[in-house]
Amino acid sequence: MASQLHLYNTLTRSKEVFEALAPPRVGMYVCGPTVYNYVHLGNCRTFISFDLVYRYLTHLGYKVRYVRNITDAGHLENDADVGEDKISKKARLEEVEPMEIVQRYATNFREVMALFNAFPPSIEPTATGHIVEQIQMVKTILEADLAYEVNGSVYFDVAKYSETNHYGKLSGRVLDDLISSDQRDDESRELDGQGEKRNSADFALWKKASPTHIMRWDSPWGIGFPGWHLECSVMSTKYLGEQFDIHGGGMDLQFPHHECEVAQNVASSGVDPVRYWMHGNMLTMNGTRMAKSKGNFVLPLDLFSGNNALLSKGFSPMVVRFFMMQAHYRSTLDFSNEALLSAEKGFHRLMESQATLEKLNPSKESTFDVADLKEKCYAALNDDLNTPVMIAHLFDGVKFINSVKDGKASITSGDLAQLKQLYQGMLMDVLGLKVEAAAEADDDLVEGLMSTILDLRQQAKSNKDWTTADKIRDSLNALNIVVKDGKEGAEWERKS
Amino acid sequence: MASQLHLYNTLTRSKEVFEALAPPRVGMYVCGPTVYNYVHLGNCRTFISFDLVYRYLTHLGYKVRYVRNITDAGHLENDADVGEDKISKKARLEEVEPMEIVQRYATNFREVMALFNAFPPSIEPTATGHIVEQIQMVKTILEADLAYEVNGSVYFDVAKYSETNHYGKLSGRVLDDLISSDQRDDESRELDGQGEKRNSADFALWKKASPTHIMRWDSPWGIGFPGWHLECSVMSTKYLGEQFDIHGGGMDLQFPHHECEVAQNVASSGVDPVRYWMHGNMLTMNGTRMAKSKGNFVLPLDLFSGNNALLSKGFSPMVVRFFMMQAHYRSTLDFSNEALLSAEKGFHRLMESQATLEKLNPSKESTFDVADLKEKCYAALNDDLNTPVMIAHLFDGVKFINSVKDGKASITSGDLAQLKQLYQGMLMDVLGLKVEAAAEADDDLVEGLMSTILDLRQQAKSNKDWTTADKIRDSLNALNIVVKDGKEGAEWERKS
Repeated sequence: MASQLHLYNTLTRSKEVFEALAPPRVGMYVCGPTVYNYVHLGNCRTFISFDLVYRYLTHLGYKVRYVRNITDAGHLENDADVGEDKISKKARLEEVEPMEIVQRYATNFREVMALFNAFPPSIEPTATGHIVEQIQMVKTILEADLAYEVNGSVYFDVAKYSETNHYGKLSGRVLDDLISSDQRDDESRELDGQGEKRNSADFALWKKASPTHIMRWDSPWGIGFPGWHLECSVMSTKYLGEQFDIHGGGMDLQFPHHECEVAQNVASSGVDPVRYWMHGNMLTMNGTRMAKSKGNFVLPLDLFSGNNALLSKGFSPMVVRFFMMQAHYRSTLDFSNEALLSAEKGFHRLMESQATLEKLNPSKESTFDVADLKEKCYAALNDDLNTPVMIAHLFDGVKFINSVKDGKASITSGDLAQLKQLYQGMLMDVLGLKVEAAAEADDDLVEGLMSTILDLRQQAKSNKDWTTADKIRDSLNALNIVVKDGKEGAEWERKS
Repeated sequence: MASQLHLYNTLTRSKEVFEALAPPRVGMYVCGPTVYNYVHLGNCRTFISFDLVYRYLTHLGYKVRYVRNITDAGHLENDADVGEDKISKKARLEEVEPMEIVQRYATNFREVMALFNAFPPSIEPTATGHIVEQIQMVKTILEADLAYEVNGSVYFDVAKYSETNHYGKLSGRVLDDLISSDQRDDESRELDGQGEKRNSADFALWKKASPTHIMRWDSPWGIGFPGWHLECSVMSTKYLGEQFDIHGGGMDLQFPHHECEVAQNVASSGVDPVRYWMHGNMLTMNGTRMAKSKGNFVLPLDLFSGNNALLSKGFSPMVVRFFMMQAHYRSTLDFSNEALLSAEKGFHRLMESQATLEKLNPSKESTFDVADLKEKCYAALNDDLNTPVMIAHLFDGVKFINSVKDGKASITSGDLAQLKQLYQGMLMDVLGLKVEAAAEADDDLVEGLMSTILDLRQQAKSNKDWTTADKIRDSLNALNIVVKDGKEGAEWERKS
């Protein structure tokens, strides 16, 4: 069992003890959404995983500066750094200003994250908000002679950088393979702008804007826009320093995005920027990766409402969050109606234990080792945030809690206080679950209960049992409900 | 009665017919919050007033691009463009990065606006997100020879500009008065940097950053930051064009902020930027202006919870919104517990009429002129958005609706459909009101109803009336409620 937090570091491919560079402060950067469409569930999983990391570090007493960017400038269409800017493309389709697209989907993203009870990051910087700083970093890399300008664009010189640094150390890619795998013919290279690069592995730091490119800024190299990888290097450095503790993101960003980030940071500051690289795994649907680009995805709001052919019903944000927490963040998680139904049961069982705990009466002795349960929970979390194991321990505790309730086990008042604190801490603070208001369900329930009461009142009146009828009227009056008898039976309304 | 929309234009000090520059599109820019503290109710009134403008224009069929900025770079402490940057100051107090302050309060601002049912703007640009464009505008104004550089700062040359333009036309200020009113001695002028200006009426376009100034950017004039007035000129131009329809803001921004905006736009583009200048009036508290700088303000969340010495209870966001709508946006509105209590009654009365409307039975004739009511409502709105008059007409309609309900008046099915549409349009679409979920109240109600039912069940059991007791159990079962009889009486819980 681990008494210290261990994190799996993609850079070393091993679990390491977490040591903050400047405790109690921790700097964490997470690659955020590109806001050109509604956030899909696969993205949500990544952000919820890092919300867990943020919550657990905070729970342990660290003061975390959590930076998660919003990519509002769009990035290039594919890994070759070419093609149309995603945000501009959508803007032209809808005949709106790109920043209208950004606003619509950033607003949706924040709403969905709030529904999932994920904390907003400490800072939410945007790519367009850091053009000056991005231009500055391009200048610095040019001065270090690790980039070159061609026709208004600036490219990072991967071959040159590799003479003294290891390009590929994060992703495990081998530079020679990257270059030799570029099998396209000369014509297509020319079409997508590859012809400008000295080497197919080079990537754009700054791109010249074509006359029709909407998002464009003035720079020392003419009118253009920043390359896809640049913003994260710039914003992590600005808000967390040249070296910081944790960098997170989806596994699909390891290459080229994160590899290029490392290269940019090393080239401009000489320092390896990130101590712990953490990558969240993907959400699959019937075994296939959930991704916007494949059209194989579920939108969170459809999931909540049940408006999807794959779902038998809607699932609340907390049920979905719990479903995600039942898998380790580095494991793939397969999404299915059955798995969600099962998670829903588990979620309610755990949350009900909270209410049960409040009703337990303490005894003189405990028939369960609460300290051991607590130790196991923390050991699981310290083992690279192993939430499925931690949750399994919590379920063991629920069995005990229910036994005490049924009089088949006992607990001291001291242990009871410990147990309440443990469940509060694990469920609310760390897993980020909360009691969900069931407003609509309540409306139906109130209608149903009123219908039952009015039936009983009608029955009493038919039986000329005026005492009962009056008693019902008085009870309802006290609840601010007025009953009126009309031609079509009794009606009720709330007093205002 | 006005059949065309008339708006009061601060520029001409008169109500004018609204004519869009490029119908059906309308461009509207509103000065948004400076996010260095929780948004207070006075600010909220301004933003809710312009939400009304946005909603009514949209209701009339215009396609509005609504831009409301977020000032995240802080602006200078006072109108003389000197002193410490507000956001940096707060950051140092809390030992955090300025952008952490920005994120905290921008998140709060968005949450509060959503509670007030105000639409997010189409674009929500930030000052820090437009440094490149701001530098560009400073360059342009320098090239027009209407600004000058001194020691790394650039000032707008008001006297020079006034040779060919009217500085003061928006606010009614007279330039000579502005200059002669600068009575401070030379020493204080030197201390606050006034000594750099050719003229005390000049204002900063770009300020040199002191070594301790946190928010700073590289520029052609050295490291510095943009002047307070610049961002709005730049962002309105970028997203709405050199000339656009409506510019809104609080009345306190008329001078110097909006006057300087006009000067900057005219100096850089040669075009008078805004067709209709609209200014919302302030919220007073016991007759005094509600303002952060006076410490005389109420925070929205305290108002909702009732956590304020001046309040007898909490008031819901919709009650507060309705309270604001009962005053004209150009009138001061005095805030008091009594006024809110009265607004609460009025709000509930109006909203209940919506439910009543759904239950009315049509007759062969109408005893009320629905078309006339509709005309009056639109006439009031077309008269510079006179919501108090429009609401008074709605209350007249409520009297009629209640008369129909009581059988003392009648309505045809055609008129009923018209009336429903009118109330839906006025209450929901234009005033932006909505039915509020009363989740907590419902919890209490469910408890109360269950207590009533369990009493009746107990009574039935005591009377050995097993039929009734079983009937109650079955009804509750159908509502997913399980009753368990224990030593201390019956308990109930929801089935999961």
